[in-house]
Amino acid sequence: MNALGKHLLLELKDCDPSTLDDTELLRDALLSAAREVGATIVGESFHRFQPHGISGVVIIAESHLCIHTWPEHKYAAVDIFTCGDEFNPEDAASLVIQRLGAHDPWLMEVKRGIFGYGR
Amino acid sequence: MNALGKHLLLELKDCDPSTLDDTELLRDALLSAAREVGATIVGESFHRFQPHGISGVVIIAESHLCIHTWPEHKYAAVDIFTCGDEFNPEDAASLVIQRLGAHDPWLMEVKRGIFGYGR
Repeated sequence: MNALGKHLLLELKDCDPSTLDDTELLRDALLSAAREVGATIVGESFHRFQPHGISGVVIIAESHLCIHTWPEHKYAAVDIFTCGDEFNPEDAASLVIQRLGAHDPWLMEVKRGIFGYGR
Repeated sequence: MNALGKHLLLELKDCDPSTLDDTELLRDALLSAAREVGATIVGESFHRFQPHGISGVVIIAESHLCIHTWPEHKYAAVDIFTCGDEFNPEDAASLVIQRLGAHDPWLMEVKRGIFGYGR
């Protein structure tokens, strides 16, 4: 079914806790995943909260990668939104899962912007 | 059911097309929605593509608001991720829907980071 975008929601429990409060590591994880799958990076914003937890986003020409971490729960919520067929967002998801050492990851794919039916 | 975050996915078809290719309007729409519900803005990144379409994100202390627009389809994909109970993300969603003049919006809420069951 044709859709303008694919949106992957990743629930990452039991991550390696040393990764989740390290802004540079998470920034590199998202930027590297974007680069390795061939995405074009156009913007980014990362922020570390007190006492812990990081939020970050990388805007790519093909949409975005976002992360929010709760180190105290060894948990990260990641979402990867892509449009076009130039790369597979699941490849980027796999790279992020590996980098965070997430055990038993959960992933949902939501098709966004479905057109061409009815009317 | 307790969850660390609430993630709203908005499918906005039949938007006012004059809004979807206007970076300043979309930036103001997201920032204003965040401010009006009492969120704390900590970062932002907006990018306009050629020949049209905008991607933008506002990072808030309570997580994020993202938008991707396809003016040629009068369509925007928005997602609003919040943590904590300090404000209701649906209020921010309503403000964005109004600002974009979206008819017949569709919204899905996904609870993110559910803990406290089993183990």
